[in-house]
Amino acid sequence: MDHQLRRERLAARLPDLGADALLVTRLPNVRYLTGFTGSNGQVVLTAEQGVFLTDGRYTEQSRREVPQLERRTYGADFATAFAQACHDLGASRVAFESSGVTYRFYEDLREKAPDVELLPTRDEIERLRWVKEPEEIDMIQRAQDITDEGFERVLPKLGEGITEREAALELEWAMRQAGAEGLSFDTIMAFGESAAEPHHHPSDRPLGRGDIVKMDFGALHAGYHADCTRTVAFGEPPEELRQIHDLVARAQQAGIDAVRAGIVGKEADAAARRVIEEAGFGERFSHSLGHGVGLEVHEGPTLRGPSEDVLPENAVVTVEPGVYVPGLGGVRIEDMVVVTADGCRVMPRSTRELVVL
Amino acid sequence: MDHQLRRERLAARLPDLGADALLVTRLPNVRYLTGFTGSNGQVVLTAEQGVFLTDGRYTEQSRREVPQLERRTYGADFATAFAQACHDLGASRVAFESSGVTYRFYEDLREKAPDVELLPTRDEIERLRWVKEPEEIDMIQRAQDITDEGFERVLPKLGEGITEREAALELEWAMRQAGAEGLSFDTIMAFGESAAEPHHHPSDRPLGRGDIVKMDFGALHAGYHADCTRTVAFGEPPEELRQIHDLVARAQQAGIDAVRAGIVGKEADAAARRVIEEAGFGERFSHSLGHGVGLEVHEGPTLRGPSEDVLPENAVVTVEPGVYVPGLGGVRIEDMVVVTADGCRVMPRSTRELVVL
Repeated sequence: MDHQLRRERLAARLPDLGADALLVTRLPNVRYLTGFTGSNGQVVLTAEQGVFLTDGRYTEQSRREVPQLERRTYGADFATAFAQACHDLGASRVAFESSGVTYRFYEDLREKAPDVELLPTRDEIERLRWVKEPEEIDMIQRAQDITDEGFERVLPKLGEGITEREAALELEWAMRQAGAEGLSFDTIMAFGESAAEPHHHPSDRPLGRGDIVKMDFGALHAGYHADCTRTVAFGEPPEELRQIHDLVARAQQAGIDAVRAGIVGKEADAAARRVIEEAGFGERFSHSLGHGVGLEVHEGPTLRGPSEDVLPENAVVTVEPGVYVPGLGGVRIEDMVVVTADGCRVMPRSTRELVVL
Repeated sequence: MDHQLRRERLAARLPDLGADALLVTRLPNVRYLTGFTGSNGQVVLTAEQGVFLTDGRYTEQSRREVPQLERRTYGADFATAFAQACHDLGASRVAFESSGVTYRFYEDLREKAPDVELLPTRDEIERLRWVKEPEEIDMIQRAQDITDEGFERVLPKLGEGITEREAALELEWAMRQAGAEGLSFDTIMAFGESAAEPHHHPSDRPLGRGDIVKMDFGALHAGYHADCTRTVAFGEPPEELRQIHDLVARAQQAGIDAVRAGIVGKEADAAARRVIEEAGFGERFSHSLGHGVGLEVHEGPTLRGPSEDVLPENAVVTVEPGVYVPGLGGVRIEDMVVVTADGCRVMPRSTRELVVL
């Protein structure tokens, strides 16, 4: 990863922001710009240089991970260290990430760096991150490969009486055994009528014959996330759910067919949603079609009703329509895809067919 | 849990805040005041009533979990829903949690609720949470019991050649099998010289004879955290590390002996630190003595140098001195304790002695 190049791209934005420096506080952005993987680190970046700030726990680690930048360690008081860094860098107009600081943090900066004019900015680094470098796509593919392996390994474990909680744990364990450094998010494992909740929390409900099994899961690899949903059945499911699975699969294919560089997020969403609406289930598709994935499991660009985001080549986004019927169950099918000039490449290798166990 | 009583206690603070309502946005605080366990929910609380706000994913769940409050569902736009709620409640001066909103969120509120005067507040609910109710202490004890069981189960797995990553995973799996609903935090598993880093990230380093093994780990139960550190040895460790273990154990006991209702955080820290300083290792104890634990793994009161926090009866805090020697290794011993009128009760049941495997 060429962190230097990324910082240069960002620094080129400073004149437009009317700033002579940018304070970066959101951790995924700090990682993107420096390679730092710890839990506390900030960067103050000017056109020519940058200062990396962290606390004593990460002095050693940052020496290894952030060799290119000047590094400073502070105690509990970031704001004073920030004021000093601005002074040393000659920065008086400093842009900051308005979604990367709490109001309290902002108050502290104002109090302890009274000579610095603070300029709120939005999504500057996030926008750079939309377009993945080849190495990043490789990392995400690896996260997906591990996720696929977890899926394959968990299917034989889905036997009569296993609970949602146990099955979720088995799936998580399988991904960890397959090499995941962590989980992208808490696994969703929903049996039968529980699958009608898009974001069901695994319970002690046991698996029974005829239950649909909805799993939303993903592995973390080198800081990059995977996000995948599969819906299978344990024994023959109700006919209506089989039809819903077919419908969601068709909607998903329509979404995938629509995704290409240049399409607007809301158009991709509409392409999939239309299929579900025409079947009379529009009200049952209660969330958006998809979102970007990378150093965060939810990032831009977004594929949803109001989104004006234009998908760039080499963005990685999910395509994940769902239909949820209270009392009966629900189906979601989700794949990450890499956006290409004339279409997209589907990342998971696991089948999207309705597997009946 | 009597959420109503907690809300009443908080509402009694409104006059002092010069506010006629409080907007609660920090999730642990929302959970504390309502019982809501989802990932997105807010409360607007007045002296007489309250409105709970969430998005469509949690309409059903909040009906079950937050039956006492009026509930409203919003789409992507919280700020407009907030403005409406303030209008309906007749609230024009609304306190908000300054560490619970991003600057961007604050900007949105100002823009979409221009008639509402927003008053930043700090730690109002966090301070209430310092004092645990008996039922909360039971939950934390249960989280610790699961953590103890995980520790007991992982010891036989610590064999020649197992890597830090594998051992961390085994420990996490053992806690999950013992009933943990999740992990309090990413497990620290550090072998040999890696133990010199207080917050080491598990690597592929294999375990060898004579290695010290430092584990910082904890189970999550019903939203409550455990936080525990044990240092054991695989085969006879270097004599210096054995002496350091004795030193840290004595320092920890001094800290535990100092903890009682009414003591100031910095005094407790000093009591343990003195032991380490007198042995000439003061520079090697590079972090604070402890912190509160509850719905967050790190909360108040804090036991550290500058802390003026006065420990109340029924607070739950960690006592966790450590000594870290680069190139050699390190030792930390950490127990949660319940503060009592005349001392404290240690929560873990596992030994703090240096176990040699």
